Amino acid sequence: MIDSVSAPQLVCSPRLRRTPFSRRVEAAGVKAYTVYNHMLLPSVFRSVEEDYAHLKSAVQIWDVSCERQIEIAGPDAAKLVQMSTPRDLTRMQDDQCYYIPNVDAAGRLLNDPVLVKLSDDRYWVSIADSDMLFYYRGLATAAALDVSVFEPDVSPLAIQGPSADKLIERVFGEDIVNTRFFRHQRIRVADVDMLIARSGWSLQGGFEIYLDGSKHGESLWDTLFEAGEDLDVRAGCPNSIERIEGGLLSFGSDMTNEHTPYEAGLGKYCQLDAASACLGCDALSSMSAPVRQIRAVEIDGGKPPALTEFWPLHDRSDSIVGRVSSAAYSPDLNKNIAIAMVDRAHWDEGTSLYTRLPDGSRRDVSVRRSFWV
Amino acid sequence: MIDSVSAPQLVCSPRLRRTPFSRRVEAAGVKAYTVYNHMLLPSVFRSVEEDYAHLKSAVQIWDVSCERQIEIAGPDAAKLVQMSTPRDLTRMQDDQCYYIPNVDAAGRLLNDPVLVKLSDDRYWVSIADSDMLFYYRGLATAAALDVSVFEPDVSPLAIQGPSADKLIERVFGEDIVNTRFFRHQRIRVADVDMLIARSGWSLQGGFEIYLDGSKHGESLWDTLFEAGEDLDVRAGCPNSIERIEGGLLSFGSDMTNEHTPYEAGLGKYCQLDAASACLGCDALSSMSAPVRQIRAVEIDGGKPPALTEFWPLHDRSDSIVGRVSSAAYSPDLNKNIAIAMVDRAHWDEGTSLYTRLPDGSRRDVSVRRSFWV
Repeated sequence: MIDSVSAPQLVCSPRLRRTPFSRRVEAAGVKAYTVYNHMLLPSVFRSVEEDYAHLKSAVQIWDVSCERQIEIAGPDAAKLVQMSTPRDLTRMQDDQCYYIPNVDAAGRLLNDPVLVKLSDDRYWVSIADSDMLFYYRGLATAAALDVSVFEPDVSPLAIQGPSADKLIERVFGEDIVNTRFFRHQRIRVADVDMLIARSGWSLQGGFEIYLDGSKHGESLWDTLFEAGEDLDVRAGCPNSIERIEGGLLSFGSDMTNEHTPYEAGLGKYCQLDAASACLGCDALSSMSAPVRQIRAVEIDGGKPPALTEFWPLHDRSDSIVGRVSSAAYSPDLNKNIAIAMVDRAHWDEGTSLYTRLPDGSRRDVSVRRSFWV
Repeated sequence: MIDSVSAPQLVCSPRLRRTPFSRRVEAAGVKAYTVYNHMLLPSVFRSVEEDYAHLKSAVQIWDVSCERQIEIAGPDAAKLVQMSTPRDLTRMQDDQCYYIPNVDAAGRLLNDPVLVKLSDDRYWVSIADSDMLFYYRGLATAAALDVSVFEPDVSPLAIQGPSADKLIERVFGEDIVNTRFFRHQRIRVADVDMLIARSGWSLQGGFEIYLDGSKHGESLWDTLFEAGEDLDVRAGCPNSIERIEGGLLSFGSDMTNEHTPYEAGLGKYCQLDAASACLGCDALSSMSAPVRQIRAVEIDGGKPPALTEFWPLHDRSDSIVGRVSSAAYSPDLNKNIAIAMVDRAHWDEGTSLYTRLPDGSRRDVSVRRSFWV
């Protein structure tokens, strides 16, 4: 049994793609997967709680190949990317990574990728779970842009945890460790091209290695594990407890195509004047005062069950005023932490609400001012 | 254990959406899911073989909510749909369903949906596993089309099997049973809107009910089961053995965005002159003689393992000349049946090839002229 998750069995087929690291992930004892961008994403190794404690104390290697890259290359590359996001890209440097909410013409979220700039006419969009490739192809074709839009054979592998710097220094050298946050360097090691960024979907610090060429996956994996043996390096994966503590949102759960960046708490990435080439800017200009927004909330009582569908949030008169989209018990905080979308009249710090779990039981909920770490 | 499938555990979250029927599916004893369009798709109830035998002898209710609808409505609706497909839509009637390969500007497949025409300015695109909504939104926005593109709250439920007509007649009446193949009728039963088409992803005959309104899911399910008790109605799902026998292709496995409709054996849906508004037609016009194509193949030896990644096809000099993308043992045919993409020099009927299974073992393969049924 998998602790703290509700897990039916998953029937696999080539439609759910394996990764350059899947054989190593399975040898490392992966207990469960989720599916992300039509690809297998490891979700549990020992248990969610054990994986959590280890992530916060040592170093883990995460197969996040499912963060697929969309390569956008050509004279109109910057124009096409800017059409999809309200974040101003005009000052972006060639070694920078930007978190960019993608929006449609109605200002609603389509994805929340990390944009990796390679040069003025070449970008990688490192996507969350939706086929953004299709949106970019649609725009590029109908607008007759001079650009190529394709998925390169590039697979990210994340190194996360307090010992991540040590491990990276041993394998790639001090110069790579000095990479600043959300900056990247490109290196070639033993004839293999890699881009290494200081980034990753945890708050523990670390790097993402964008491996160029699936066939090199297993040797890269083995190199990292050999170099990190005395650091207690383990196979890991994005951890629901750790990412809720830090307020890292999951597209498709915490925010969906129903929501605007403002509702998702991403207003600081909306620079509507500068980013006027964004096709969603007209719509967004009237939406900066949202009627609902992401909030950190705490749930009373014992450890909650796995959240596999939205839990409704009610006010004291039983009206539905939001929904819980992620929840977990945090061993370090010794409380139940959660992410919710809450209506404006009920989102102030300290507001008391309640939710109903799928078994019908009622739990008190209180709204916080911010995430926990 | 699940017979004939390789099934790790699946961690669920709201990002993998449940359906209007999920609670009933679970009460009916679903043993495993796959993920399709970010949604749970039941994959096994008793065993793949038991489900297969029952599908071919009785009647099953399938939760295929994952066949999401993209509604395209407005004066430019027909124009937008035609931009995405080489199939000529000009003669399509208001009660027709068309199987339409969707292609990008390079003529490569993006999806292979069923197009449901509601009126001249309103369509549903009932999609396979990719976010076609994003492609249509991209095209519509950049081309400034007068059209709405959105996902309505419509969830298909399939009734498949030799007793499907009997069950449909009992619940919806004789007039609905007389619906011709790939035609549909719209009805309203007990204040619930439904569109019922004679269609479905099996060769056993039957219908798909497009339920308008998630909240009515469980009562529709219950009505069908009560009416079909003496017909041995059961919960079922698309069955890999049955669909390989009949040559029903799976987008993402048997064909991908690497392939053209001609390579997928869908050349008859490419009417390039008539469908000149298709944005992929220029590219397709030079591709009608493909260098590789879908073939039915037979695999020697005992029952093969679950196919979870492509198996390479080799010729007698060990060169790779294709890949197997779906495979199963057919109890009725008493042989191993499979779908493969095969290079032109090796695709003639009777050609002997071999494949390597993931455990390293070698199996002889022979190419057939057509599918089995």
